Amino acid sequence: MNRFMEIAIREAREGMDQNEGGPFGAVVIRDDSVISAAHNEVLKTNDPSAHAEILAIRRASAILERFDLSDCEIYTTSQPCPMCLSAICWARIKKIYYGTTTTNVTEIGFDDDRIYRMLRGDTENLPINCENIDSDQCEPLLQEWKLKPDRTMY
Amino acid sequence: MNRFMEIAIREAREGMDQNEGGPFGAVVIRDDSVISAAHNEVLKTNDPSAHAEILAIRRASAILERFDLSDCEIYTTSQPCPMCLSAICWARIKKIYYGTTTTNVTEIGFDDDRIYRMLRGDTENLPINCENIDSDQCEPLLQEWKLKPDRTMY
Repeated sequence: MNRFMEIAIREAREGMDQNEGGPFGAVVIRDDSVISAAHNEVLKTNDPSAHAEILAIRRASAILERFDLSDCEIYTTSQPCPMCLSAICWARIKKIYYGTTTTNVTEIGFDDDRIYRMLRGDTENLPINCENIDSDQCEPLLQEWKLKPDRTMY
Repeated sequence: MNRFMEIAIREAREGMDQNEGGPFGAVVIRDDSVISAAHNEVLKTNDPSAHAEILAIRRASAILERFDLSDCEIYTTSQPCPMCLSAICWARIKKIYYGTTTTNVTEIGFDDDRIYRMLRGDTENLPINCENIDSDQCEPLLQEWKLKPDRTMY
């Protein structure tokens, strides 16, 4: 099997065995070398965003000292949830290798499919109510950013 | 204007002025009190996931010492990107108040709309290539989780 996926699986099992989080691991690589590896730490940290892919990206960014990881690839034991897939987009990573699927993790009780459906516009059983307020007061922030001479886009 | 949104705007401006990140701020509240506030720190930390909502959730979870924030609400100066919206789902927050929209932030160069379109199944100009590998070797992780007597769902 793929040697990077092997590391991701080892990470996942370690995290599960130590009750740090769900059975998920991820590895960020560049030029055929491991930059970072992580497992889900939602239970250990109480941070609901502490999924394996997010942590692997966060560590890789810290190591490479840049938010643009477009020269990296990610291996993950399971198809990324929408949060992680979006984080991978923001990190400019262009290649994902994944093991099990959203269907598989939904079968063992995780919410991935429910969130994917919400993002596709399925408003049935919508878990969140969104309300637009004070847009006139928030709008100037965007104009200030647009006119900021030393802004860095990310 | 809403007093929590006022705090979120102040956070956003502070982060922008200090070149810590984009013009975005967020506040998590519970029982009409502020639990945490944050601004985008992508540039300061080099972490592409360091959006205001993610940081506000992470801090609120640390303060309340739990990943379930279902008794909290979130105020954010701009409509959450798909990463943050999904994180809000994972945190079980049920109410979002937002100021400017995805259309507004797309106009000043951010990728929110591109990521939303990808998640809705628009495969044109897909920024990421996904490849399914080693699912047979990853599948046992899910079975081990399912059979784990002391597992905590999140």
